[in-house]
Amino acid sequence: MSQTEALQSLLNAVAAGEVNPEVALEKLKHFAFEPVGDFAKVDHHRSLRTGFPETIWGPGKTPEQIAAIMEVMRDRNPVVMATRIDPAVSDQLQEKVIGLRYYPTARICAISPITIEPQYPGTIGILSAGTADLPVAEEAAVTAELSGFRVQRLWDVGVAGIHRLLSNRHVLESANVLIVVAGMEGALPSVVAGLADCPVIAVPTSVGYGASFGGLAPLLTMLNSCAAGVGVVNIDNGFGAAILAGQILRTAYKLQ
Amino acid sequence: MSQTEALQSLLNAVAAGEVNPEVALEKLKHFAFEPVGDFAKVDHHRSLRTGFPETIWGPGKTPEQIAAIMEVMRDRNPVVMATRIDPAVSDQLQEKVIGLRYYPTARICAISPITIEPQYPGTIGILSAGTADLPVAEEAAVTAELSGFRVQRLWDVGVAGIHRLLSNRHVLESANVLIVVAGMEGALPSVVAGLADCPVIAVPTSVGYGASFGGLAPLLTMLNSCAAGVGVVNIDNGFGAAILAGQILRTAYKLQ
Amino acid sequence: MSQTEALQSLLNAVAAGEVNPEVALEKLKHFAFEPVGDFAKVDHHRSLRTGFPETIWGPGKTPEQIAAIMEVMRDRNPVVMATRIDPAVSDQLQEKVIGLRYYPTARICAISPITIEPQYPGTIGILSAGTADLPVAEEAAVTAELSGFRVQRLWDVGVAGIHRLLSNRHVLESANVLIVVAGMEGALPSVVAGLADCPVIAVPTSVGYGASFGGLAPLLTMLNSCAAGVGVVNIDNGFGAAILAGQILRTAYKLQ
Amino acid sequence: MSQTEALQSLLNAVAAGEVNPEVALEKLKHFAFEPVGDFAKVDHHRSLRTGFPETIWGPGKTPEQIAAIMEVMRDRNPVVMATRIDPAVSDQLQEKVIGLRYYPTARICAISPITIEPQYPGTIGILSAGTADLPVAEEAAVTAELSGFRVQRLWDVGVAGIHRLLSNRHVLESANVLIVVAGMEGALPSVVAGLADCPVIAVPTSVGYGASFGGLAPLLTMLNSCAAGVGVVNIDNGFGAAILAGQILRTAYKLQ
Amino acid sequence: MSQTEALQSLLNAVAAGEVNPEVALEKLKHFAFEPVGDFAKVDHHRSLRTGFPETIWGPGKTPEQIAAIMEVMRDRNPVVMATRIDPAVSDQLQEKVIGLRYYPTARICAISPITIEPQYPGTIGILSAGTADLPVAEEAAVTAELSGFRVQRLWDVGVAGIHRLLSNRHVLESANVLIVVAGMEGALPSVVAGLADCPVIAVPTSVGYGASFGGLAPLLTMLNSCAAGVGVVNIDNGFGAAILAGQILRTAYKLQ
Amino acid sequence: MSQTEALQSLLNAVAAGEVNPEVALEKLKHFAFEPVGDFAKVDHHRSLRTGFPETIWGPGKTPEQIAAIMEVMRDRNPVVMATRIDPAVSDQLQEKVIGLRYYPTARICAISPITIEPQYPGTIGILSAGTADLPVAEEAAVTAELSGFRVQRLWDVGVAGIHRLLSNRHVLESANVLIVVAGMEGALPSVVAGLADCPVIAVPTSVGYGASFGGLAPLLTMLNSCAAGVGVVNIDNGFGAAILAGQILRTAYKLQ
Amino acid sequence: MSQTEALQSLLNAVAAGEVNPEVALEKLKHFAFEPVGDFAKVDHHRSLRTGFPETIWGPGKTPEQIAAIMEVMRDRNPVVMATRIDPAVSDQLQEKVIGLRYYPTARICAISPITIEPQYPGTIGILSAGTADLPVAEEAAVTAELSGFRVQRLWDVGVAGIHRLLSNRHVLESANVLIVVAGMEGALPSVVAGLADCPVIAVPTSVGYGASFGGLAPLLTMLNSCAAGVGVVNIDNGFGAAILAGQILRTAYKLQ
Amino acid sequence: MSQTEALQSLLNAVAAGEVNPEVALEKLKHFAFEPVGDFAKVDHHRSLRTGFPETIWGPGKTPEQIAAIMEVMRDRNPVVMATRIDPAVSDQLQEKVIGLRYYPTARICAISPITIEPQYPGTIGILSAGTADLPVAEEAAVTAELSGFRVQRLWDVGVAGIHRLLSNRHVLESANVLIVVAGMEGALPSVVAGLADCPVIAVPTSVGYGASFGGLAPLLTMLNSCAAGVGVVNIDNGFGAAILAGQILRTAYKLQ
Repeated sequence: MSQTEALQSLLNAVAAGEVNPEVALEKLKHFAFEPVGDFAKVDHHRSLRTGFPETIWGPGKTPEQIAAIMEVMRDRNPVVMATRIDPAVSDQLQEKVIGLRYYPTARICAISPITIEPQYPGTIGILSAGTADLPVAEEAAVTAELSGFRVQRLWDVGVAGIHRLLSNRHVLESANVLIVVAGMEGALPSVVAGLADCPVIAVPTSVGYGASFGGLAPLLTMLNSCAAGVGVVNIDNGFGAAILAGQILRTAYKLQ
Repeated sequence: MSQTEALQSLLNAVAAGEVNPEVALEKLKHFAFEPVGDFAKVDHHRSLRTGFPETIWGPGKTPEQIAAIMEVMRDRNPVVMATRIDPAVSDQLQEKVIGLRYYPTARICAISPITIEPQYPGTIGILSAGTADLPVAEEAAVTAELSGFRVQRLWDVGVAGIHRLLSNRHVLESANVLIVVAGMEGALPSVVAGLADCPVIAVPTSVGYGASFGGLAPLLTMLNSCAAGVGVVNIDNGFGAAILAGQILRTAYKLQ
Repeated sequence: MSQTEALQSLLNAVAAGEVNPEVALEKLKHFAFEPVGDFAKVDHHRSLRTGFPETIWGPGKTPEQIAAIMEVMRDRNPVVMATRIDPAVSDQLQEKVIGLRYYPTARICAISPITIEPQYPGTIGILSAGTADLPVAEEAAVTAELSGFRVQRLWDVGVAGIHRLLSNRHVLESANVLIVVAGMEGALPSVVAGLADCPVIAVPTSVGYGASFGGLAPLLTMLNSCAAGVGVVNIDNGFGAAILAGQILRTAYKLQ
Repeated sequence: MSQTEALQSLLNAVAAGEVNPEVALEKLKHFAFEPVGDFAKVDHHRSLRTGFPETIWGPGKTPEQIAAIMEVMRDRNPVVMATRIDPAVSDQLQEKVIGLRYYPTARICAISPITIEPQYPGTIGILSAGTADLPVAEEAAVTAELSGFRVQRLWDVGVAGIHRLLSNRHVLESANVLIVVAGMEGALPSVVAGLADCPVIAVPTSVGYGASFGGLAPLLTMLNSCAAGVGVVNIDNGFGAAILAGQILRTAYKLQ
Repeated sequence: MSQTEALQSLLNAVAAGEVNPEVALEKLKHFAFEPVGDFAKVDHHRSLRTGFPETIWGPGKTPEQIAAIMEVMRDRNPVVMATRIDPAVSDQLQEKVIGLRYYPTARICAISPITIEPQYPGTIGILSAGTADLPVAEEAAVTAELSGFRVQRLWDVGVAGIHRLLSNRHVLESANVLIVVAGMEGALPSVVAGLADCPVIAVPTSVGYGASFGGLAPLLTMLNSCAAGVGVVNIDNGFGAAILAGQILRTAYKLQ
Repeated sequence: MSQTEALQSLLNAVAAGEVNPEVALEKLKHFAFEPVGDFAKVDHHRSLRTGFPETIWGPGKTPEQIAAIMEVMRDRNPVVMATRIDPAVSDQLQEKVIGLRYYPTARICAISPITIEPQYPGTIGILSAGTADLPVAEEAAVTAELSGFRVQRLWDVGVAGIHRLLSNRHVLESANVLIVVAGMEGALPSVVAGLADCPVIAVPTSVGYGASFGGLAPLLTMLNSCAAGVGVVNIDNGFGAAILAGQILRTAYKLQ
Repeated sequence: MSQTEALQSLLNAVAAGEVNPEVALEKLKHFAFEPVGDFAKVDHHRSLRTGFPETIWGPGKTPEQIAAIMEVMRDRNPVVMATRIDPAVSDQLQEKVIGLRYYPTARICAISPITIEPQYPGTIGILSAGTADLPVAEEAAVTAELSGFRVQRLWDVGVAGIHRLLSNRHVLESANVLIVVAGMEGALPSVVAGLADCPVIAVPTSVGYGASFGGLAPLLTMLNSCAAGVGVVNIDNGFGAAILAGQILRTAYKLQ
Repeated sequence: MSQTEALQSLLNAVAAGEVNPEVALEKLKHFAFEPVGDFAKVDHHRSLRTGFPETIWGPGKTPEQIAAIMEVMRDRNPVVMATRIDPAVSDQLQEKVIGLRYYPTARICAISPITIEPQYPGTIGILSAGTADLPVAEEAAVTAELSGFRVQRLWDVGVAGIHRLLSNRHVLESANVLIVVAGMEGALPSVVAGLADCPVIAVPTSVGYGASFGGLAPLLTMLNSCAAGVGVVNIDNGFGAAILAGQILRTAYKLQ
């Protein structure tokens, strides 16, 4: 019985007078979040509402904590993922969690069906400015695919060789939402937003040195974009960009 | 003859061999942008592609320049607008440009049909945290309405009195995309994104003092939001938030 | 003979002419601080006045220095603690200092009675936004308990899932002072201060990445809180928050 | 009938079956906040819970808006105040709002009974480092007095002439909570916290020039205080410091 | 007698034993700089070596000081200019200095021959991203022309409408050095440097708002440009860019 | 009877049993500081110990407050000065305070004997990099002269024309302490410290624009000077530099 | 037909005399970029246009990726280089890439002819302020030499011992363009630009500590230089400085 | 004839009475610097003029480079020192350089006579706020002693326990110049400057965490000190503070 069905059946029981409202409230809270040990409260609400995978942000958690949270999550959701996982941590996790897969460039560990068919219409185009931006771009791409979206990748098309971008305009034209990942000066999203005709999500990366100041430079560039219609996420936040892109396509789906 | 029709007819003439391709190319460039005096190149491309109003960013331009650009733009587009216009500048513009309307809270001047029917499905919900954030929130709202979108406003629902927001959850639920405007600590978008199930665009404002550092504080808050699915625009950039929200609804419309 | 009694008896001797004022002054200075090697002056004054444990800030001190200072302190105070102690340093300290206990999540080493009964009325509620904030939250909790205060913990109630907080409003209502620990966007203290009716101490943490800038983002968020009645301490300073909370409950106690 | 009584009577009516719960909910929401024009939602909840005055933050609001909000507030609360009010704005307000008083140094306008007797035990000591810090210190002092607390002022006791502070140690000793206001290097709270034995609230001010960077320097000083037990509020935020100090004394009162 | 001739004749006199070396040294120092009142030392050396105009940076000097310095300078150099001159200051200067011309967009006052023929081979191409960047771009253009260089202007070709730039590639191709002026996100120099095959000088401007932070955003963008061969000057420093471009063409000239 | 004599005579009276110690303590406190109205405590201690003028920092004080403090100060000290005084404020002060003189470039108002003979051996050399730095350099020079020191000025010797500095090496050699004032890049103190053989005090100024960030650039330059033996004061703080230079010469005097 | 095959067939046709070289060149320019694996697009355009070496920025790429890109590049260009290569990475690369040379101070790996004769007129003078700046200065020098330019080095001539610079003025006079590398306070470029009569490229380094803030201090110094004619590149960017210097000499060459 | 040979021959001539010492001194000053390998120019000028030790800043130099520079220096100066030397580097140096001593807390390696008698009148008082500030304070103390000055240390007298400072006022009174070292909030120099009557040199340290931002907090505190007469040096720059203090005492000595 899926989580949604369980919820529906609880509410029916209340309506039929079979379950007392106070009791139902207690149960509902349990739907809302579930304690794991004494260090976490797994929040099923959001995944329930959105259909996105349950996700754990890896840094600052021990492999034991991550594994324990994953086990609680997998009971309720077919896809569970953890981000910012180094290879060494992945090795430990794979000993503890059955069926875990690792995406090394994206640094993501996931439990998921072998193939995930796109569940929503539309395509998310993902562009990266340089080779060194790939880990962030792949974090976005893998997250989007695990969430049930169709992805088209276009790597290494930074503005210093603008013809590489212009030769691939068909990618811009066929995408319904674009994620643009760039470090150093971070100028790619402005150029893309001037060419494209769909929402653009800009992801600054910490790639660079000196006056990059850990990604501050491309972050400011993107926030000051003179091309309107660009939304910016945190430095290196490929995951957040994918979720925002997914929300945009889900909105389209719901409006149909 | 509308801009689209003119373009179509040019291309037909080329196809029919009536116009030489080199000549057509020259004409097409003219479609792309049009010089105004020696200080600006009006870019009709984007408005042509997107249907959004032609827009002038007011600061750093003289009233004469703004008026001259507006006259060039109005020949090609039913809606023309200028942002960041002080009342005194508006007074000067209204002497020069016939049919100009002024939205004082939003600080927008616009030429437009008397009524603009929503041209796209869906609703943009716009929330502001405090009364002092209204100019930015209204810039977003007026821009969205002039661009042909349906808007629902919800003002003064900051997190320090969370019940004001919780009592208005129906606004969050009925919107297809949300713009959340907040200064000071800028916490509202995180809370909203945790409650809502649609894309959230966060707009930091320069409202505040001291450690707000001109809007840096809410900007960082929003970029660090622990609720995924939030895209951030520049400080006080209500206009950009509206264009991004509009792009999202247009994407939905095109996917249908 | 307790430190307070020793002080009283010295002053009586001066009043009775049994001790020369110059001699007394020398002795008093000894009460005030005591040299340890040539690198520290242990200040007993504050602990004498407040009853809080003697505390050593660990970083930048060798295990030998920490152990030497602890030995001087334990002669005068039943509770002695050291903060920011890594497990490896703790292992070295436990070889040198008899009866030392280690709290690994809080990174605190302490000499103390086996059980510490609360010595003051009231309860300090401690909330953390995420699992990764636990080390700072536990530093606050353990410090408060070692100082003789009653503590109630509430972990993992960040604003992105506001129902987790709202379902635990009884914690907010039963506490007399609240410590709220949060990294990333740091919005939790504002929401808590809007719901609670007691002093709120906000502790930003360095948890996060990118535009968190080592905790600057939640620090600014908390300083700009639109909910009045929030006092902020340094990034990751769980210890300082506990001492401030303790001072507040002691004030209440003294006013009775 | 006071607000608290009205609330009590509504709940009694529900309990007695005289008022339908849905109707009561609607009424309760009205207690919670009340729209003023279309630009504000006055939040009576907090003032109801805490007994503090209803307060308007002046900047970014027109005199008309301030006056309208004050009129709504005064129906429910004997004390209403507005902060950051320039003399010219005060003049306009006094024409619109009957019985309004102006405190020029504190830049506060208030409606209040002629004399406000302290309603809580204890004393708030307020110290300022320099003459130029007086507006912030007075904002704290007037807010505290209007909120029903006893205040003791000690002006111009900065650390560059430490004997001025040491000669007034009795103020530190007789206060139950201290507010310490300082600009420039902002060192006063650290020294005070080392001498005092009660909670200390530090308020950085924007007084200074050059490397003060608008108050950043004293803000950082205070956050880094090596004296534990110091809570910091935003730059120039005398109001917030007074509310926090008041919450501390109310906690003492409630614990009795 | 020109400055160079005067210098030559002095050295000849020394060689011929007609002038004592000590005396010559004193005279040489006078060539090097000349006191004006007690507030300035006019440095003729640099202009002597480079042939560039003598230039006064206007801010922080009174009109009287500027006029006095100009009078000393004009005795030795056919072109004298002052930058950052507001119209009101220009009016005052024109009353005091005969033959002064004002370039209002560039905010430059200059004494110069009526026509200045280019004295060096090559062309300086100057591009601006937006209309609001014109004052800085014109400061560069007028400075270059007064210094004897050929200039080609290309205004309003920002990256959000990349076709405006691509349609004008002939300007990039015909220039020997390029000055690229841009505010907001400052991405134009990176794109230009990727297309052009000559040195590129990037000038960030303070045009923008919010996270532009007074020009910090485009400054960082330009410093982080992934296109090598870009030199950056200070925010709004059109003058410095023109001098650097001039030095580059003079180098070419001297190498011939 | 001078202040020092008065103090001596009080202590003698205590020693002779003519004055009760409690009474003496009260009197001593009066020596230490004297209240002016309820807004200031004039601190005579420092001026008593050092012989420097009594000084008022003007900003944030009303002309009435400044005049009142000056009147209290002049009773005890032959020289009284106020800094950062605009001409308009000076005009108001001169109506209220008899015998007040104004130094317009230095923005200092002072009460002093008509001629102040140097009271200490040695010379303070003061250098400024540019004409726009003169107000800060003159603040230092006038302060030093009013404090009884010999001053040698050397204006407009910035590093871009290093021969102007090298031609004046005798000034560096004859000074016993050097104050070096520079804005923009602030490189002058490093060069001077490499040439000179005495203590160097560096004063950054807010002269400049763009990436000067209000004087941050020269401040950092001076702090990072690779020439050891440079002490830095706050941006624009000519006054503080003069006091430090004076302390250095007084130290020399006392060591003799 | 793959892009590589198409290229091969084109070159064969040229070799066979079937295609005219001018025509081939045009076609070649259209072979804008070549994919390497799925992680990079090698851009031959720029190197083709400018004659500079093909260059790989090392950080964030695996040795395998670097080696693969080098192999693709060497087919088209006699000189291929990689920057920011640690000795350990260099060891791995030398096993994979035949004929690779390592410049340890410059941290550059290169494939190149054994001797590279200068291909352009003129000399690039390169100055460093201190010994610790050598890696950046050598990165500039080696890049320039591999690109076919004549280089003159002048190390350890910082401003704190200005005579070291003045004794080497002949280097400044004989160079046609100067690269000036400096960390700490970064004052050297200003002094050099005041003495020299050619374009100056300033390179800040991250050498220093404390208020150097990772090179921010010398970066700001150089941007604020009061000597016009200075272009600044990113912190530690010796490579970019060399390319800009080379572009300047190539401009001279083309203008002849 | 190499520079070294020329020097040798000059010294021989002096020894033989063939050259008058005054003449030799003049000539020696012209031997401004001596190359060491191709990576450094040892500058004997400054040490010759001032009598301070020759000093090498360790970071960024290999042990081989440090040893080579030391050998060149020791020929001319009885005291040679290197700063910021880790124990491991010290071990390597001691194998290469005969008679090298290591001061581990100060991280200084030095060649010097066994005992260094104070060569100047007066005492440098050095204060540190906390135990963790000792490495910086000892760097100052050892540098001063190696330079021939008398030093008095006073450790662990931070402002949070002001009585520790007040009980040691005799140190402040007997010193002729004070160096005050403090991290965290950095308030100690302001308090000391208010009590003392001699020049005060403030040294911020990077001790602290969170909002200390690597020493920025105490740096700003010290620059904003409301006590005039404080000169600030770079973060952690104990060496520079000692040299400045030494220059002050030398000035006194020369004025006698």
